[in-house]
Amino acid sequence: MSDSARPAIDPAVRAYIDERLAALTRDLPDNRVTLVVFSGDLDRHLASLVIATGAAAMGLEVSVFYTFWGLAALKKQSVLSGKSLKEKMFVAMTPATLSKMPLSKMNFGGMGRAMLRTMMKEKEIASIEELFAMARDLGVKQIACTMSMDVMGITKDELIDGVVLGGVATFLGDAARSRAAFFI
Amino acid sequence: MSDSARPAIDPAVRAYIDERLAALTRDLPDNRVTLVVFSGDLDRHLASLVIATGAAAMGLEVSVFYTFWGLAALKKQSVLSGKSLKEKMFVAMTPATLSKMPLSKMNFGGMGRAMLRTMMKEKEIASIEELFAMARDLGVKQIACTMSMDVMGITKDELIDGVVLGGVATFLGDAARSRAAFFI
Amino acid sequence: MSDSARPAIDPAVRAYIDERLAALTRDLPDNRVTLVVFSGDLDRHLASLVIATGAAAMGLEVSVFYTFWGLAALKKQSVLSGKSLKEKMFVAMTPATLSKMPLSKMNFGGMGRAMLRTMMKEKEIASIEELFAMARDLGVKQIACTMSMDVMGITKDELIDGVVLGGVATFLGDAARSRAAFFI
Repeated sequence: MSDSARPAIDPAVRAYIDERLAALTRDLPDNRVTLVVFSGDLDRHLASLVIATGAAAMGLEVSVFYTFWGLAALKKQSVLSGKSLKEKMFVAMTPATLSKMPLSKMNFGGMGRAMLRTMMKEKEIASIEELFAMARDLGVKQIACTMSMDVMGITKDELIDGVVLGGVATFLGDAARSRAAFFI
Repeated sequence: MSDSARPAIDPAVRAYIDERLAALTRDLPDNRVTLVVFSGDLDRHLASLVIATGAAAMGLEVSVFYTFWGLAALKKQSVLSGKSLKEKMFVAMTPATLSKMPLSKMNFGGMGRAMLRTMMKEKEIASIEELFAMARDLGVKQIACTMSMDVMGITKDELIDGVVLGGVATFLGDAARSRAAFFI
Repeated sequence: MSDSARPAIDPAVRAYIDERLAALTRDLPDNRVTLVVFSGDLDRHLASLVIATGAAAMGLEVSVFYTFWGLAALKKQSVLSGKSLKEKMFVAMTPATLSKMPLSKMNFGGMGRAMLRTMMKEKEIASIEELFAMARDLGVKQIACTMSMDVMGITKDELIDGVVLGGVATFLGDAARSRAAFFI
């Protein structure tokens, strides 16, 4: 029913209703999904990307907050110059990029990972790099956790383009307005 | 206050209020909890079943979406015939069924798992198989991730009866209407 | 607009609106975040404490439910007397307290953990013990899972002061009224 076709309502009554409803609507979640990707495992990143691209394709706003081991997904490549000895050791101990992540289970020195990749290819399922690119195309917001960057000595230059920097307040701001939020 | 006992309100006013409220109510979450079980660890499946049965017992609708390593919980038994070599290797590398899953930590070749089972029995806590059966009795919806089935070459015949098949859209549809959703 | 300044509205209309809105408001989430910490890994506990303190600092109510391996964060120290042989073995197999937890990855027998601690100190980021104390100061509710205590034979005396005991219903009650809930 359009407003003009509606029978006359006392403007004071309508104003009261609208005001009360506006207050309530502010407390409703947005059409939004928020993920925090803590893990550095290929399979968990795969799951996060399937959820993120799926949600974006369904018209939901999606924020993915990459923290701790998960941050590797946003790295261009490992950089050693300008880093302290401890930071260099941390670089050596952690996966360089998304493509080099191990599986959480049955990795067998990369054999499980290679097998999974081949099987996905044979079934014509998008590879993890394709899913990552698809997420960006669909407007998924990718946020690098500044505290993790700080601890590990990673600078903005080491991250791929288009990444937003943010702290826990950024993440919680998005999560608290979401229909669903996941820690992966 | 019943509707008949209520003092007269202009029908146009009441219609306006009801219409506005109906739109808002559609945006509220259902009395629903959604879990995605990605893990293939016995202890994490145990946690998911305690949450699922607890929520169902409290009168909440519950959907559990089994994906990746988690899918093993829905398998009758490992099937090798009709599978490609890679699919067979994947079968060999992953836990056959719920009962054969390892612990995420301190598994010690099954000793931790056996100890946990005995301790639960001594304390008269339901076993994982009992919790799984209880979840089904309480009407928990169990969904097998079709993309995971596809990647791993698992067919519907290999799954226990009563399982629903679904993709990421099914999962997100339930999650977005839930009071709480967890990635386990 | 204050109620006195508002133009007159039929009291019956106002009562109808208020009653309908009150019912709807009861279904909205509280300003609340709920975490369930299942993991016994230092890095995951670190993430949970950053989220918990961040949310509390933003004015959200926070409940953290410690279950299974996560329960170690609430233990004063390992106690052996009065325990059955199996319970003693479980104590020996699990981390004693928060400070003794390993990293989920790259722990290298404690070297990764020590390195992470030093790097956090150098960057003047609060240590995990400081974050834990901060969470308590900010009023984060810490709940020990009674079922886990029961399985592992842990008594209330073994837990630090100020911890609330609760089961899955307590946890789900909080989670279902939360803006965001995470399984960590």
